[in-house]
Amino acid sequence: MSSKKFTPDWEHEAPGENSYRSIFKWGSPDGFKHPNQRLYQLLKKRFSLTDADFREKQFAGQEIVECERPPGLAAEHIAQMQIFAGEANVMADDFSRVKYSNGKTVEEAMNLRRGINGKVADVVVHPRDKKDVGKIIRYCDTHKIPVFVYGGGSSVNMGFKPVRAGVTLVMNTHINKVVGFNEANQCITVEAGMMGPDYEQLLNDAKGKLGAKRAYTGGHFPQSFEYSSVGGWVVTLGSGQQSSYYGDAADLVVSQEYVTPKGSFKTLAYPGTATGPKVSDMMLGSEGCYGVLTEVTMKIFRYNPQNKRQFSFIYPDWESAVNASREIFQGEFGNPSVYRISDSEETEVGLKLYGLEGTPLDTLIMLKGFKPMQRCLVLGQADGESDFTKLVKKKVRKISAKHGGLYLGSFPVKKWEKGRFEDPYMREDLNDYGIIIDTLETGVSWDQVHTVHQEVREFIKKRPDTICLTHASHFYSQGTNLYFIFMAKMDDIEEYRKFQDGILDSIQKNGGSLSHHHGVGRMIGPWMEKHLGKEQMDALRALKNHFDPNNIMNPGGTLGLDSPKREY
Amino acid sequence: MSSKKFTPDWEHEAPGENSYRSIFKWGSPDGFKHPNQRLYQLLKKRFSLTDADFREKQFAGQEIVECERPPGLAAEHIAQMQIFAGEANVMADDFSRVKYSNGKTVEEAMNLRRGINGKVADVVVHPRDKKDVGKIIRYCDTHKIPVFVYGGGSSVNMGFKPVRAGVTLVMNTHINKVVGFNEANQCITVEAGMMGPDYEQLLNDAKGKLGAKRAYTGGHFPQSFEYSSVGGWVVTLGSGQQSSYYGDAADLVVSQEYVTPKGSFKTLAYPGTATGPKVSDMMLGSEGCYGVLTEVTMKIFRYNPQNKRQFSFIYPDWESAVNASREIFQGEFGNPSVYRISDSEETEVGLKLYGLEGTPLDTLIMLKGFKPMQRCLVLGQADGESDFTKLVKKKVRKISAKHGGLYLGSFPVKKWEKGRFEDPYMREDLNDYGIIIDTLETGVSWDQVHTVHQEVREFIKKRPDTICLTHASHFYSQGTNLYFIFMAKMDDIEEYRKFQDGILDSIQKNGGSLSHHHGVGRMIGPWMEKHLGKEQMDALRALKNHFDPNNIMNPGGTLGLDSPKREY
Repeated sequence: MSSKKFTPDWEHEAPGENSYRSIFKWGSPDGFKHPNQRLYQLLKKRFSLTDADFREKQFAGQEIVECERPPGLAAEHIAQMQIFAGEANVMADDFSRVKYSNGKTVEEAMNLRRGINGKVADVVVHPRDKKDVGKIIRYCDTHKIPVFVYGGGSSVNMGFKPVRAGVTLVMNTHINKVVGFNEANQCITVEAGMMGPDYEQLLNDAKGKLGAKRAYTGGHFPQSFEYSSVGGWVVTLGSGQQSSYYGDAADLVVSQEYVTPKGSFKTLAYPGTATGPKVSDMMLGSEGCYGVLTEVTMKIFRYNPQNKRQFSFIYPDWESAVNASREIFQGEFGNPSVYRISDSEETEVGLKLYGLEGTPLDTLIMLKGFKPMQRCLVLGQADGESDFTKLVKKKVRKISAKHGGLYLGSFPVKKWEKGRFEDPYMREDLNDYGIIIDTLETGVSWDQVHTVHQEVREFIKKRPDTICLTHASHFYSQGTNLYFIFMAKMDDIEEYRKFQDGILDSIQKNGGSLSHHHGVGRMIGPWMEKHLGKEQMDALRALKNHFDPNNIMNPGGTLGLDSPKREY
Repeated sequence: MSSKKFTPDWEHEAPGENSYRSIFKWGSPDGFKHPNQRLYQLLKKRFSLTDADFREKQFAGQEIVECERPPGLAAEHIAQMQIFAGEANVMADDFSRVKYSNGKTVEEAMNLRRGINGKVADVVVHPRDKKDVGKIIRYCDTHKIPVFVYGGGSSVNMGFKPVRAGVTLVMNTHINKVVGFNEANQCITVEAGMMGPDYEQLLNDAKGKLGAKRAYTGGHFPQSFEYSSVGGWVVTLGSGQQSSYYGDAADLVVSQEYVTPKGSFKTLAYPGTATGPKVSDMMLGSEGCYGVLTEVTMKIFRYNPQNKRQFSFIYPDWESAVNASREIFQGEFGNPSVYRISDSEETEVGLKLYGLEGTPLDTLIMLKGFKPMQRCLVLGQADGESDFTKLVKKKVRKISAKHGGLYLGSFPVKKWEKGRFEDPYMREDLNDYGIIIDTLETGVSWDQVHTVHQEVREFIKKRPDTICLTHASHFYSQGTNLYFIFMAKMDDIEEYRKFQDGILDSIQKNGGSLSHHHGVGRMIGPWMEKHLGKEQMDALRALKNHFDPNNIMNPGGTLGLDSPKREY
């Protein structure tokens, strides 16, 4: 059994300059998180693989990027972009064109690993400010040139894939500054391309950087935190991992400023107003189809990390974990900030991933009769004023005990917290050996949780040797979300697409929403008409036609607005 | 000084059948609340009046309603309405036409008292269900007949004034039933015409009436509670007096069902979903201009009145009361439910109205040095789980003490609570002697509170012998509202209009929103384009044109969509 000691040669070097790998690799070039031995053993077992399957990397994508086609946009248009945004900010080289045309879907990674570029931008422009954006949009509208907007680049649904010849605007290069800070109103205005960590750091250091009286937090921590922009959170309706207390991205928005082909505007910034349907709300989730979000004013919160209280539990089963969570979020004593319930399959991985396996805690769990593949792990954290977090934790413990939850202290949450932004780094290691890991997620009302969980899981598990880990991690008094992570040995892109389609069909058939916080993009677009019905799709299209009559903004299937099929 | 003993002959009999008074009188026909002696003395003093001015009622509106013009709608259309909704549900008599054409504005009351009908409906239809509504809307769209929707009838901005010949649909007669109750999802679906008290009672008695496991509350208690409908709350963006905890009406909506000329649809009911701009949000605040709201699914809350904790304070001045309120609502320990801060002028009336004047509490206030016309009264209440309300009250008391607030116990809140729905009844008594009492209100960010308060107040007080009472009663971490109540001896409708225009101009000039929770209607419509800017007004119009291309839905200036001027 010497094979147990074998460790694959996980990639630990930054990808080469201008390589495909430098585009699809998650996160910073020299950031890595490798599967630990426990996880590696599990993968082999579950996928019926041996060490031999992990001896040679496949399609590592170390080749230099080359485009098959030169830019399709006329030279005069590219020259105009240089006039608008400055010569240095207009790029038509192969690497830029491919880099800014790819998000973080499994399909894109599979293609790039194989040197398949798919649809790429004709020209990449890094506008310096909203004035540049205004000029570009007006020009492109006049000349009917499609425009795609790249925020942080973390889209997992082909949200900015430039499927029609045109211009890709990169927001995070220059349009990433603080515009205004208003401590009385407890809000901040930033340019849309500001990246998550810059935003949070700015707020945490508000005393030093903004002359504030205290420190603040944005309260928004999606798993893509490090590689997503504030504007991206808003236009795709993102949710952070602490949304159950702080709210989803849409709840955090005070006001937005847009450039559209029809003109520019800033929405009202009142915390409460009864002056007709809110234009700000109409733009939330518009995914670049109505215009370009250039500035956004967000609610901020007092930053008091010293007050946070963490907790974790093991429940006998999924049902009792769900029941307890419903009671907590309908309990009217304040909401926990982090709250995550893992189903039985995810719990087994979680126990390994969070280092519980083999500890005295693990022994306790076994002794108390919590059975593998039935028991469910729950992690949580309360944020806010100190007495408040104390109360929330007390109440959560009480309700948890009532439903059979065993308190496990804060150790597992701390482990989760430490790894929460690093876990996606493992994707590359798995992909290197032909194992895909992907996610699809849905919003559900309480009365839909079990059906959607069971049926979607059943669909995924029908495929042999496929792992399906599910958790709920965003809670409301009316329901929650279900987040499905599936892993399989899969090499064929067509098979992958078909499998993904099947999961989306199953979510839809069983009544879940098409997305809880990943947005729609082009990937889920084809399901939208059935999801919303014709009347409501037509309402979205009416706004689309109003703001963008020439359909230059993110055309080609986004939100299912202008194409029922996938154009990528 | 025998005059002090004089009490005006306040009207204490229900208005005669079919009389104008039966239309404009607030609330139930035999419900009355008369000014007490303290208030009466104050009124005389402040308006430079004597008892002689209160000897004879003016324009009491006891005459029988008569219409100047017969219905302008062709007989064939009226006959069709009878086919659609049943003969008994179609009314073209003078009284019905006038009754369902009037809301609760001062201007309408002034007119009706004088027997001036203004614009009235051609025919009043009481549809039986959403199918009737569908048929009527389709027919009216085909024949380009304007449709106006009467919910509870409490509009204070000419929201359903039938300014163009057409049909008025009355929603509260039949379309007022429970459609569904989902305890797991903690929400209820009702027809839009269900009135406030029926809704709340149903939820309070959920165990008996809905087979629920516990009692619930809707958490929405506007001052118009008794005479407004659930659907009306939603389409006008109302706020209840406990909104700082439960949320504004828009926050309570889970899903809506509409009939529009373009078709019918029910919006998604997920608590969280990232599937593009939300059509439900586009319809919120549409004030009947896009279609008819027929059913609405609302969040509900556990009903635990035994847990509520009340408190009141007197602060040295408005500024310290505002500062404390900001600290409370940015404090992250949970929000009070009721929270009201009265400015110095309102405080003096409040002390009389809530029976504090002359009590030991009053003496204490004086002894502690809280000066009349500087001191500010604050009332509040925490709702929710018992430990939570205890915490909220404790925190509020601590912050209040820091800002110089003196704790006054719960007596003043209890008095306010008792009278909160009755106070509007006093309007008729005052009107009977030519004194108008009216309100305008605005949403403000924290940094706007003082400017808007001072400037609007200054405008109102420039008019001699005019009372201006102001409070803030809906709180957010980013700001609050300002609610201006003005009282004056005023007989001339033109003077009244001009005065009101001046207040709206002042609110707008100083940066407040045009309405916090009264909506826009036709009264504020002319200010909308300047408020939103052309780009955003055009977005509202794009949706209007989409849903209602023939402009049959509530036409004639509502929301400023189709007319820059007042058509009433």
